[in-house]
Amino acid sequence: MTERIRVGVLGASGYTGADLVRLALAHPNMDITVLTANAHAGKPMGAVFPHLGHHDLPDLIKVEDADWDAVDAVFCGLPHGTTQEIIGEIATARPEIRVFDMSADFRLRDPAAYAEWYGHEHRVPALQREAVYGLTEHYREALKAARLIACPGCYPTATLLALLPIVGEGQVDPGDIIVDAKSGVSGAGRGLKENTLFSEAGEGLSPYSVARHRHAPEIEQEIGVAAGRDVIVNFTPHLVPMSRGELVTCYLRLAGATADDLRETLIERYADEPFMRVLPKGAMPATQHVRGSNFCTIGVFADRVPGRAIVIAAIDNLVKGSSGQAIQNMNVRFGLAETTGLEQMPLFP
Amino acid sequence: MTERIRVGVLGASGYTGADLVRLALAHPNMDITVLTANAHAGKPMGAVFPHLGHHDLPDLIKVEDADWDAVDAVFCGLPHGTTQEIIGEIATARPEIRVFDMSADFRLRDPAAYAEWYGHEHRVPALQREAVYGLTEHYREALKAARLIACPGCYPTATLLALLPIVGEGQVDPGDIIVDAKSGVSGAGRGLKENTLFSEAGEGLSPYSVARHRHAPEIEQEIGVAAGRDVIVNFTPHLVPMSRGELVTCYLRLAGATADDLRETLIERYADEPFMRVLPKGAMPATQHVRGSNFCTIGVFADRVPGRAIVIAAIDNLVKGSSGQAIQNMNVRFGLAETTGLEQMPLFP
Amino acid sequence: MTERIRVGVLGASGYTGADLVRLALAHPNMDITVLTANAHAGKPMGAVFPHLGHHDLPDLIKVEDADWDAVDAVFCGLPHGTTQEIIGEIATARPEIRVFDMSADFRLRDPAAYAEWYGHEHRVPALQREAVYGLTEHYREALKAARLIACPGCYPTATLLALLPIVGEGQVDPGDIIVDAKSGVSGAGRGLKENTLFSEAGEGLSPYSVARHRHAPEIEQEIGVAAGRDVIVNFTPHLVPMSRGELVTCYLRLAGATADDLRETLIERYADEPFMRVLPKGAMPATQHVRGSNFCTIGVFADRVPGRAIVIAAIDNLVKGSSGQAIQNMNVRFGLAETTGLEQMPLFP
Amino acid sequence: MTERIRVGVLGASGYTGADLVRLALAHPNMDITVLTANAHAGKPMGAVFPHLGHHDLPDLIKVEDADWDAVDAVFCGLPHGTTQEIIGEIATARPEIRVFDMSADFRLRDPAAYAEWYGHEHRVPALQREAVYGLTEHYREALKAARLIACPGCYPTATLLALLPIVGEGQVDPGDIIVDAKSGVSGAGRGLKENTLFSEAGEGLSPYSVARHRHAPEIEQEIGVAAGRDVIVNFTPHLVPMSRGELVTCYLRLAGATADDLRETLIERYADEPFMRVLPKGAMPATQHVRGSNFCTIGVFADRVPGRAIVIAAIDNLVKGSSGQAIQNMNVRFGLAETTGLEQMPLFP
Repeated sequence: MTERIRVGVLGASGYTGADLVRLALAHPNMDITVLTANAHAGKPMGAVFPHLGHHDLPDLIKVEDADWDAVDAVFCGLPHGTTQEIIGEIATARPEIRVFDMSADFRLRDPAAYAEWYGHEHRVPALQREAVYGLTEHYREALKAARLIACPGCYPTATLLALLPIVGEGQVDPGDIIVDAKSGVSGAGRGLKENTLFSEAGEGLSPYSVARHRHAPEIEQEIGVAAGRDVIVNFTPHLVPMSRGELVTCYLRLAGATADDLRETLIERYADEPFMRVLPKGAMPATQHVRGSNFCTIGVFADRVPGRAIVIAAIDNLVKGSSGQAIQNMNVRFGLAETTGLEQMPLFP
Repeated sequence: MTERIRVGVLGASGYTGADLVRLALAHPNMDITVLTANAHAGKPMGAVFPHLGHHDLPDLIKVEDADWDAVDAVFCGLPHGTTQEIIGEIATARPEIRVFDMSADFRLRDPAAYAEWYGHEHRVPALQREAVYGLTEHYREALKAARLIACPGCYPTATLLALLPIVGEGQVDPGDIIVDAKSGVSGAGRGLKENTLFSEAGEGLSPYSVARHRHAPEIEQEIGVAAGRDVIVNFTPHLVPMSRGELVTCYLRLAGATADDLRETLIERYADEPFMRVLPKGAMPATQHVRGSNFCTIGVFADRVPGRAIVIAAIDNLVKGSSGQAIQNMNVRFGLAETTGLEQMPLFP
Repeated sequence: MTERIRVGVLGASGYTGADLVRLALAHPNMDITVLTANAHAGKPMGAVFPHLGHHDLPDLIKVEDADWDAVDAVFCGLPHGTTQEIIGEIATARPEIRVFDMSADFRLRDPAAYAEWYGHEHRVPALQREAVYGLTEHYREALKAARLIACPGCYPTATLLALLPIVGEGQVDPGDIIVDAKSGVSGAGRGLKENTLFSEAGEGLSPYSVARHRHAPEIEQEIGVAAGRDVIVNFTPHLVPMSRGELVTCYLRLAGATADDLRETLIERYADEPFMRVLPKGAMPATQHVRGSNFCTIGVFADRVPGRAIVIAAIDNLVKGSSGQAIQNMNVRFGLAETTGLEQMPLFP
Repeated sequence: MTERIRVGVLGASGYTGADLVRLALAHPNMDITVLTANAHAGKPMGAVFPHLGHHDLPDLIKVEDADWDAVDAVFCGLPHGTTQEIIGEIATARPEIRVFDMSADFRLRDPAAYAEWYGHEHRVPALQREAVYGLTEHYREALKAARLIACPGCYPTATLLALLPIVGEGQVDPGDIIVDAKSGVSGAGRGLKENTLFSEAGEGLSPYSVARHRHAPEIEQEIGVAAGRDVIVNFTPHLVPMSRGELVTCYLRLAGATADDLRETLIERYADEPFMRVLPKGAMPATQHVRGSNFCTIGVFADRVPGRAIVIAAIDNLVKGSSGQAIQNMNVRFGLAETTGLEQMPLFP
């Protein structure tokens, strides 16, 4: 008989929460027992997300009304700050619950960095120390025993999957990394903001949060681990008129290697990874080719500028960049086959 | 052990073919053994559809090179005319192969109607007589023994699912039906046409084939069956700047019934249908809520004009409107659970 | 020397207001002297609409701080209800100011209809009686002496331009009119609503306000005038994933005329109208071909259903459907050439 | 009386040609006397571009049938190679005609570079030597006497407007320039290509021509002039799901200057330029805010990486990036006010 994992989704009224539910409904081991969304407490999920309205799901409740006895795993898509308090309470009251946090609250290991970027002290620094960074392909062993898994942000996921192996091999200069990132509008969430209205974001392109996006320190933390030293990375995101999809174009200075070497390193490193697709020379990653799936596609290109290379990665920001990766981590943590429930083909066109 | 169905996809380089492959890869009983695309013979599928490039699939071949010994079922997405010849050959040479035709070639029972709308005589009229119209929810019993299944067009699928029960019950006047239809651009196929370029179709809306679209006689044929008499239906399609999705808005004259009666009829008729979702009063069908899935959503509204009602249905044109429905028919034909491989949740956003 | 018209725009932070300003900046006779937006008072226009930020415009102020001495004409894009109060005050205090109201507040001549559809009594019914309905092509003479011009809604504009001449000629049955309408998302305004977020409205299509949209009584009022009797019209709007553009598909029962007769009537009626383009037989109206312009394109088609015809009109909802038509009315009212400042070509692609 | 300039548009069936016609129709001095499009010879312009169909325009003819007596200025939007031959013939036969070439054929001053990037020898190298590079803001004086003006590519226009002043001032290292470029789909032209179909390009993002795009040598040529030495620039374009718009994000190493210094240089350099808008600190360029207009918007940002800066420019690829700039050059060449016919406001939303 299949193992059952009873799952709570906190913050189920956001896009990340909805995609978690979408994937969980197709996962053979997951039973959704708790769905919270404080602003919508009392409503059925179908009132908030009609595309999920025809399934047998618990009604939305306030997070304080959740029955923690009914869950083995919690997926948390709450705003930062709030997240720390609630996860802190769960960790104290129910240490046996596995927590997969999709917010930014436990990603930065250095509390000072957290305070600098998020504007307040970390509220449960002891718990922070326990958190494992949930970039599955690079933290798999640590994940197996983790109680609290801090799932990476969408941009860091794509960037780190592309760069960690080659930085780790010393093939590129970690001190000269430029990441030009592009995201679909769903990355901005379901909150009401003028700049994400259809008439504002459609048929247009703009950068945002230039030189001050909160995913930068997260990228730097992990690149730093791979490089063995502190680094500062250029990270510049842009808003693209599409709902889903994320592409990072990484401009790199080679360190005694060629672009072909980089590709070779990535191919070898990811040979056994079910969701990683390093493209052959000349092929272009495209977000439309991973849409709705947990795949990450990487292309490597020699630059015309001598001594430089370009590495480009594409993911679906809501799947591999958030909910899919969180379930991938759950699969690892609960000893399931890692691809369980995550084998959706990309939806193209 | 699970029954294996060896599947050939003819015309695999079109959107319908690609979506068939996408769904087949996730279907527990389907093994793709033959993929044809004459213009691309010799290439791997990934060269034509990169999003499918990382799966174990046979290379594309010419249809004349297909090994019919290697297939139990054929899904045919070829242009009309060509389809008749090839299916005619298969039917003669290998009568045991089950054919699921996604083209228009076997949908019209009346050869004269075919000749009128398609500009040439039907080439295998005997075979035409044998074909079963593959609107699963309405022809399920006949499908179980069919050798050749003529899967409906995308527009007829949505329209007939919405209208057949209420026409059959005599609740609306079959002589006064207006169908204003709207489709995403993928419905026009992958062929190179100026009007489906991004810069032409984007940020714009236009009608096309007004009063002369080939789906009209197909709709009329089936409405006629339900009504027990010949009918002419207004059918006016529009091209909408989205890739997937189809919505039909049907304007109806009531025949002694109310809009609530219509909704009740549809709810009862489809109560046990796994892919049919008749919405509660006031809820609006939306293509984005069925995207990528095999669901059909129907809303029923009283018109302000006395004695009139509006019935609106939404589907994904490539899934329920084509490949998904074809697989649903295959499931019926091969005695599998009808939802096998078709339980993908809609992809929203 | 060119006549100067000093112009105030009330509600300048909405899309209608912004497009009015865009057009006014290119108009040789208009000087913008007052811009109000209560929620943004004190800001420069460029803080609210960056695309207008590099022009010499007055800062946004509260409507109560407007200096009515500084304006000859007021364009009003305020929410309904509020509009009545403010225009009422202007009319009393400064009867010499010409008011071009782009809200719905003075469009319905019957106060009972207003109360029924808008949920409260009309606040200045005397002023209502004075208002002229600003469908330029059909009320030109009355407009020349009007003090208060109630510019039509976007849907009524397209619908009435298409239908009034043929209803007036008795060529179609005014009792059997079905208007399937489709609009770009800008029609929903700049207010923050979940359903107009990019990730919600993009790549999808849905009906809304079925059988209860407030533009229905406005259409019925004017069709009724042309028909010489009360009518009820089916009017069903849909939200289309594009920013600008509106298309109405009108299903009509012929009254002793043919589709060719209808086209002929429209061609004759609009022969001297600079913004009306009745297309030749077979040509399809498309919103992308009028984008950004004040043009209205109309196509006429015989239905396959005997005795029926289809008339389709396309406009830019923000230009001919709102701000452009308002300026057209101003040109008429102030005795300028009607096309002054409105000769922008459509922006395609 | 206004000076009349009789204008021929060669290659009028492409997007660049159509936008040239759109702008010319609104230009007080331009009379279109010749329109060529070999594949559409004999058709009216409205058959090829319905949005231009209601204007008094000459029918399309073959370029060999053009009456050169009827033109004072030629705008050339032909494919490369062909361009050289036709312009060569015009230059010989009618040296008094002013030629504004919008193709790539006369942009590269070095014939070897042309041959390398375009795969064949330049066919009229003598004429090449005479060509003036039509980046108006930087070659204005030379343009005043030019017979042949090689209008820059869209990407070079945005990039060079952003970089030339600061490279010229020695404020950034010309040897370390990375240009991450993003363009709307209209930049790929109206030719039929699978990757520019709506269903392929929509809802997706991908790089293309990485490290081998033909705009790279053009950028390098001009940066080299400003730097006083040869440079190689990283240039990586991406295809964005929008019709119009182009944004270049330039990653720069500072040379003894700060980001504020760069902004100051740009503000000073462009203070009197009517189409250049250097944004205040913190403001983000956005393509939707220049759509349809001849404006170029530039933002300057300090990078978090010490010693680096980011300069971002947005244009409409078809206007400032092509047809608008060509007309701007014509205005200069014919002694008109430079903004004549080019004062269209951006179309937003």
